[in-house]
Amino acid sequence: MTVYLVGAGPGDPDLLTVRAARILSSADIVVFDRLAEPVLSLAPPGARLIDVGKQRGDSWTQASITALLVDLGRDGLDVVRLKGGDPYVFGRGGEEAEALIAAGVDVEVVPGISSALSAPAAAGIPVTHRGLSDMVTVVTGHRQPGDETDWDTLARLGGTVVVLMGVGDRAAIARRLIRGGRHGATPFAAIHAATTIDQTVTRGRLDELGDTPIEAPATLIIGPVASLNLASLRSVVAS
Amino acid sequence: MTVYLVGAGPGDPDLLTVRAARILSSADIVVFDRLAEPVLSLAPPGARLIDVGKQRGDSWTQASITALLVDLGRDGLDVVRLKGGDPYVFGRGGEEAEALIAAGVDVEVVPGISSALSAPAAAGIPVTHRGLSDMVTVVTGHRQPGDETDWDTLARLGGTVVVLMGVGDRAAIARRLIRGGRHGATPFAAIHAATTIDQTVTRGRLDELGDTPIEAPATLIIGPVASLNLASLRSVVAS
Repeated sequence: MTVYLVGAGPGDPDLLTVRAARILSSADIVVFDRLAEPVLSLAPPGARLIDVGKQRGDSWTQASITALLVDLGRDGLDVVRLKGGDPYVFGRGGEEAEALIAAGVDVEVVPGISSALSAPAAAGIPVTHRGLSDMVTVVTGHRQPGDETDWDTLARLGGTVVVLMGVGDRAAIARRLIRGGRHGATPFAAIHAATTIDQTVTRGRLDELGDTPIEAPATLIIGPVASLNLASLRSVVAS
Repeated sequence: MTVYLVGAGPGDPDLLTVRAARILSSADIVVFDRLAEPVLSLAPPGARLIDVGKQRGDSWTQASITALLVDLGRDGLDVVRLKGGDPYVFGRGGEEAEALIAAGVDVEVVPGISSALSAPAAAGIPVTHRGLSDMVTVVTGHRQPGDETDWDTLARLGGTVVVLMGVGDRAAIARRLIRGGRHGATPFAAIHAATTIDQTVTRGRLDELGDTPIEAPATLIIGPVASLNLASLRSVVAS
């Protein structure tokens, strides 16, 4: 009985790790989020798939997902908890691991390609590049009470800023970064459905970000590297 | 004729992406760095392996590596340029891609699991965790002229700080972060040879970092999450 916290990567099943693909291909039960949907094709035909994403109108909370994992793990089943990107990077995998360990359930983490770094690559953007940026900060744009990002300081720090779950608040994010000192002409890029055939890339200036239509969810990249358009990934599957 | 810029991940060959493993397993020529050595076992027996790492006493520079890739690509060969971690995250892959594109050589980027995020996971440390950190900044400790990290502002920003190539300058890094406002009791963790059987994890307080022996290269994690020791990855291969 092991619960595997598995990173599904950005979307393309070819971008799972070898280990993740192997574990997923022999799973009995897969508990998945919306962002992990594109790789479900790797699960065996008989696997039980449990959708804990929020877009179904269901009432899954983090607490109820964690409780489900503990119950399944205690039943002695091998469970794959499949998360978009990497389970330990804004994936709340740490909370699930804590609860499972406390309940005496074996847990193994299988890392994934984080969207924070691979969505830019899918648009031909390295997050660091000589002469443009030697630093990258990843933040979430999804505000939680008491967890307010210090955008002023982040603006002063410079480098590349990657914002996950930031489409809804993009106007406020842009305004705060400019108020903190980032130039309005700083390039941004927004990547939706990265590494899938539905991928779209939107580019512009930071002072236009708030007025630019962007389909959510998307990864936002803000900084000089966002103007690059170098070799990118192949995009081969439907999201 | 394609030059594939392939991320080798943190060390364990099982942590390559499915696509990277497939491309590497049919490579004619592999141009590799030291950090990519643990996964060379995936290259076919007849492949030509070119070591451009610096530990051999050779005189490879970034310029000569890039020139080699352009020459090989122009010869019409399929070349794998294998880099530890991810080619677009502190990997100088962007520079190589730029030069290859300018020379008319086809380039494809195959992302890898970045050590910046997976070395912490290999020590049971999620880089973000509710109540501890909702932000991660990745910097290099290897100073380049004119590219000085603003450690004061980074200290004020808070969150999780991941330092790559920072073992040699760890005393100065710790001093600057403390001077900038990080508490001396802030936990750190240093992971050497992550995800291999040679992995070592060193933990302590930020004000002890300078005096703590750490084998290079290592990934440094500084911040409250560094005290966590949750479910981690399996480590299965020699580095």
